[in-house]
Amino acid sequence: KPAFDPSEHPHRRYNPLTRSFVLCSPHRTKRPWQGAQESPQTTQLPAYDEKCYLCPGNDRATGGKNDRYESTFFFENDYAALMPLDVEQSSDADSHPLLRMEPARGRCYVICFHPSHNLTLAQLSTAPYTAATHIVPIIRAWQDLYLRIPAENPFVKYVQIFENKGSAMGCSNPHPHGQVWSLDYIPEEPAKELESQKAWALDAANAEERISLGVRDDKGRPSLLLTIAKLELTSKDRPRVICANDDFVAIVPFWAVWPFEVLVLPAKRQIPAISDLSSDEAASLAQILGEVACRLDNVFQCSFPYSMGIHQRPVAASASASSASAGACNHGHGHGDDDSWDYAQLHIHFYPPLLRSASVRKFLVGFEMMAEPQRDLTAEQAAKRIRDCDTTHYLAKLA
Amino acid sequence: KPAFDPSEHPHRRYNPLTRSFVLCSPHRTKRPWQGAQESPQTTQLPAYDEKCYLCPGNDRATGGKNDRYESTFFFENDYAALMPLDVEQSSDADSHPLLRMEPARGRCYVICFHPSHNLTLAQLSTAPYTAATHIVPIIRAWQDLYLRIPAENPFVKYVQIFENKGSAMGCSNPHPHGQVWSLDYIPEEPAKELESQKAWALDAANAEERISLGVRDDKGRPSLLLTIAKLELTSKDRPRVICANDDFVAIVPFWAVWPFEVLVLPAKRQIPAISDLSSDEAASLAQILGEVACRLDNVFQCSFPYSMGIHQRPVAASASASSASAGACNHGHGHGDDDSWDYAQLHIHFYPPLLRSASVRKFLVGFEMMAEPQRDLTAEQAAKRIRDCDTTHYLAKLA
Ligand SMILES: O=P(O)(O)O[C@H]1O[C@H](CO)[C@@H](O)[C@H](O)[C@H]1O
Ligand SMILES: O=P(O)(O)O[C@H]1O[C@H](CO)[C@@H](O)[C@H](O)[C@H]1O
Repeated sequence: KPAFDPSEHPHRRYNPLTRSFVLCSPHRTKRPWQGAQESPQTTQLPAYDEKCYLCPGNDRATGGKNDRYESTFFFENDYAALMPLDVEQSSDADSHPLLRMEPARGRCYVICFHPSHNLTLAQLSTAPYTAATHIVPIIRAWQDLYLRIPAENPFVKYVQIFENKGSAMGCSNPHPHGQVWSLDYIPEEPAKELESQKAWALDAANAEERISLGVRDDKGRPSLLLTIAKLELTSKDRPRVICANDDFVAIVPFWAVWPFEVLVLPAKRQIPAISDLSSDEAASLAQILGEVACRLDNVFQCSFPYSMGIHQRPVAASASASSASAGACNHGHGHGDDDSWDYAQLHIHFYPPLLRSASVRKFLVGFEMMAEPQRDLTAEQAAKRIRDCDTTHYLAKLA
Repeated sequence: KPAFDPSEHPHRRYNPLTRSFVLCSPHRTKRPWQGAQESPQTTQLPAYDEKCYLCPGNDRATGGKNDRYESTFFFENDYAALMPLDVEQSSDADSHPLLRMEPARGRCYVICFHPSHNLTLAQLSTAPYTAATHIVPIIRAWQDLYLRIPAENPFVKYVQIFENKGSAMGCSNPHPHGQVWSLDYIPEEPAKELESQKAWALDAANAEERISLGVRDDKGRPSLLLTIAKLELTSKDRPRVICANDDFVAIVPFWAVWPFEVLVLPAKRQIPAISDLSSDEAASLAQILGEVACRLDNVFQCSFPYSMGIHQRPVAASASASSASAGACNHGHGHGDDDSWDYAQLHIHFYPPLLRSASVRKFLVGFEMMAEPQRDLTAEQAAKRIRDCDTTHYLAKLA
């Protein structure tokens, strides 16, 4: 029997944050590709586009008009997937427990990251721009919405901040922007992660020496994500670390699904939500987000498409929450229980689809949809590729 | 307060097979689309392509040569994601429970559905072709592999049969073909579904009158999927039923994620696996698969891309399984336990990505990846669109 070599042999890796598996087939990168080609953003865009519904001063599709903003700007999504409308659910006699539905309430916002139509997060940390001046304001806008939406809409329980970048990720406008969807329930993914963080804290309490590395949150509980940050930062040769600063670390997670998936984690302390960042931490986060986006663009010298999203603490204040969100129990799962909220650790996922080049992506299709996620290169191989890239954006070098 | 109207108001629906939720925003179909355009298959393909590595008699990339087959033909995948190689896992002292991996073994096959390069499942049930002559052989090939792979490879525990159709679903060759990947473990999705079917059977036993409609499997246990089939077939106006025959029913599941998602279910009895079909049932399954694929093509008058997959009973014979698959416990989940296998009901998922037209798809990106799946039109609206389509293929009408 040959010895198991994870850089050569098919294997499964375990994701402790979602408690699920991914199949890794490193030998498969040798496969030729004859399928679909993506269309990378190649043409140079203008700094202002009069037809863009996100550029400063322009009209939007449904009659609104954008401010002549100079930094960031947000407005309510004209085609929101959720509405604040409160409806009466009839007690339908016909309804069967196998055909269950319930109304969902929320509000959705769009945040323009910058007035220039032709910039992205990746360029905002490279000269002539700086993360401190150009990315910190985006973090301030996220903080503002994270606090403001639930204050104005007491039914809101979770705030999902995300960005879809590039047409390969369903983004229909290249103007740098993200979205914030708020909901009156905790959706599947964050609920699962909250429960896993709680379960880890309780498990680890019983086997601390072996598994927790002694990394605890400010209430003295073993912390899943702080432990992972420490594991990665102290591992020999740091094979999955991309970069780190005073407060955060960026890794390709051991259990990555997307080829160049990145996870940004607090490195030092429990930071439940975006609103809990100190000024220094906000600056550190701006720096590392800019660096990650810039390095990704440099991997294939293209505007690297991705979906990026922030997972953090649910928002309803614990006292009012218990009544405002009594409906939670009806969701049937026990997922995202109030007592799991205390274990929340802020973190940011990047899911970028490209695999081999600017025009060849990974498809998570047949086997992945029906059975389980599958990836070709290992997390360590991907981290090395990203780590070997420059921190100056390839377009800034051309200029 | 207005009354809740699921065809107008945002709501969440529950999927009892995966025990998770989907957000449905029916008002959102009004949103304009300025994003990526898919490239539907428009050019007419030849019946034989000398450069196709799946056409009869042709050479494959790695040196193999295809039979001059006249019906179906299968061979081992030249770039398999899994290998039968048995490797020795070292007891790595460095390994931490948060960085868990284990070797995975399996074999992967490709099945050519038909010698003609330019046909699809959708066309094989319309004149001059018939499901009985042209789709039944595909089912026979699935049965053959389902029995043969574990017989030849005793380590195999699950057989995943699937088809990726269309370049939008990562398919790199239009020649009609599917894949069979076999594994020495039960992957995430089927494991989850097996556990849900078992949990339902045990729950339902306690509240039979209310929830099971008295639908039981051949061992007298309440059956989740037989109950859903009966619920849909007996519901007023059958809003989610697309079509049915003597043995199967095709529905847009109440909890569908993909816009035109379809679920094919046995309508009458527990059929654990593809090898348990009677000849009549195999003919019925061939008929309904052909009809579903044909109707989907007719929705936008294009070759409708999709991933299709079969979920069924794991394969290791129960006696040898317990030893061969003792490793199951190491997967840590309790998912897919041996005693859940008995609850398996064969069923077929179709996940088609198109939303508005032959060139505009649904993207499951930012919110969907970070929070939970979201859809625009309701399952009932989608079912009506598919039901209103003809059962003669649009290309057969042009001819
Ligand atoms: O095996 P193929 O057709 O080369 O590849 C396709 O299907 C596989 C199984 O769903 C996926 O892993 C690949 O990403 C996809 O491109
Ligand atoms: O809101 P947008 O940018 O119009 O739309 C995009 O992001 C949404 C949220 O992830 C998705 O539901 C859509 O499928 C996608 O096209």
